[in-house]
Amino acid sequence: MPQPSEVAAMIDHTVLKAEAVWADVQRVVDEALEHRFASVCVNPVFAPMVSGKLAGSGVKTCAVVGFPLGANDLTVKCSEATVAVKSGAQEIDFVAHLPYLLGCDLDAATAEFEAVVAASKETNPHVLVKVIIESAALMATGDAGLAERRIEAACLAAKAAGCDFVKTSTGFHPAGGATAEAVELMADYGEGLGVKASGGIRTWADAAAMIEAGATRLGCSAGVAIVNGGAGGSAY
Amino acid sequence: MPQPSEVAAMIDHTVLKAEAVWADVQRVVDEALEHRFASVCVNPVFAPMVSGKLAGSGVKTCAVVGFPLGANDLTVKCSEATVAVKSGAQEIDFVAHLPYLLGCDLDAATAEFEAVVAASKETNPHVLVKVIIESAALMATGDAGLAERRIEAACLAAKAAGCDFVKTSTGFHPAGGATAEAVELMADYGEGLGVKASGGIRTWADAAAMIEAGATRLGCSAGVAIVNGGAGGSAY
Repeated sequence: MPQPSEVAAMIDHTVLKAEAVWADVQRVVDEALEHRFASVCVNPVFAPMVSGKLAGSGVKTCAVVGFPLGANDLTVKCSEATVAVKSGAQEIDFVAHLPYLLGCDLDAATAEFEAVVAASKETNPHVLVKVIIESAALMATGDAGLAERRIEAACLAAKAAGCDFVKTSTGFHPAGGATAEAVELMADYGEGLGVKASGGIRTWADAAAMIEAGATRLGCSAGVAIVNGGAGGSAY
Repeated sequence: MPQPSEVAAMIDHTVLKAEAVWADVQRVVDEALEHRFASVCVNPVFAPMVSGKLAGSGVKTCAVVGFPLGANDLTVKCSEATVAVKSGAQEIDFVAHLPYLLGCDLDAATAEFEAVVAASKETNPHVLVKVIIESAALMATGDAGLAERRIEAACLAAKAAGCDFVKTSTGFHPAGGATAEAVELMADYGEGLGVKASGGIRTWADAAAMIEAGATRLGCSAGVAIVNGGAGGSAY
C-alpha cells in the first residue's frame, strides 16, 4: 500500500454539488494546496476562479463536462469542454452518452469521444481527458457477460478516441459509484489508459481497495479525511 | 378537482434518466400523443428527434438546459438553450445557478435568467422558458424566513427576467422534489407566472395536491398512471 503522500498525489479533490458556493470551493482549493492533491475538480462555472487560485502551484484545475447525465447535444458538450479549457482547466472529465455504452456501440461511442477529445485538446494539447462511463449503470444487468462487454466497449472507444483516462462514476447515479470489480475490468480492457475511481470513496480502506484494483486516480470529496486515515465526504 | 383530461393537458411527460435510450423516449412520445399531454420533456440530445415526431401534433417538445446542476458556464448554458430551440424545442426548462438563490442575490439571478431567456427566445419568440429553482434545496434550512426570502428572490428574478414559469425541482436533488408548501410560495411570489411542480409526483393524489397548491403545470414520468388514477414513475 502506498504512503499517504502518494495517495494524496492521486486525488482529484472534488466539489460538485449544485449548492456549492464560492466559499466552499475556496476551502477545497486551500485543502488541495495544503495536501498536494492532483487536482481540484469542479463544475465549469467555477473553473476560471479555481484556475486563477491554483496557477503555478502544480495542483491542476479539473472541470466536468456534460455532467452528470451526458445527454447533451454533442456540439454543446464539445463547446463546454472548449470553454473550460480556455478558462484554465487542465483536465476535463466528461460524461459519455450512456446509451452508446449500454448498447456496446463502439462506433458511436468512439465518434463521440473523439469529438470531445478534439474540442478539449485543440486549445491546449496537454489537457488530460477522462471519460466517465458510469460503470455501475453499465453493470446493472443480470448478465455478467453483457456487463463486461459494455465496459470493454467503453474502454476500447476511449483508447481509439485518444482519451487519457477512463473514469468510473459521476457520483450522482442511483446505480452507485466505483466498485473494485469495475476498476479491475477497466484496468484490464483500458490497458495504457489511466483509471479514475470515483463515487462513494470515503475512507482510507476505500481508497486502498481501488488502488489495489488498478485505479491510478481517485475522485472524492473526502480526500483530507482519507489521507489522515479517517472517513468523510459525500457520494461525490 | 379537474378532470383527468384537464390534468393531462397540464403534464410535461418526462424522461430524463441518463440511461434512457431512443426506444424509451419513443414510448414516452407515443404516450404523450395518446393522452394529449402538454409536452414531452427530454434531455437535449433527444430534442431533434422528439420535435420531429411531435411536429403538428399540438404536443410540445420541452428540453432541459444546464440540467440538473445549473453550475455551467453561463455562455454554455445559453448556447445549450439556443441549440435546443433551433432543433425544435418549444419549451426550455433551465436550472438556475443555485448559489445566487441561496444568497438571495436578486441582481445576479436576474442577470443569469435574462441571458437564458434571451438565448431561448432569440430564435423563436414563442418559446416558453421555465426556470428550475430547486425549491427543496432552497428551503433546506432551519430558518423559515430565509427559506421564504429565497423563494421570493427566485420568483422576483424570474418575473424581472421574462421567464414564463417557475419550476420547483429537477427531481435529481437529494433535498427532494416538489412540496405543496413550495408551490404555494411560488404561486404567491410568482403571481403572473406559471408554476410547474416536478419531482416526486407519482399519483393522482400528488397531482391533485400540487394543483390545489397553485401548480399550473406538472412534470413527471408517471403521467399515464396519474391520469388513469394509479401510481408509477420515478422521482423525475
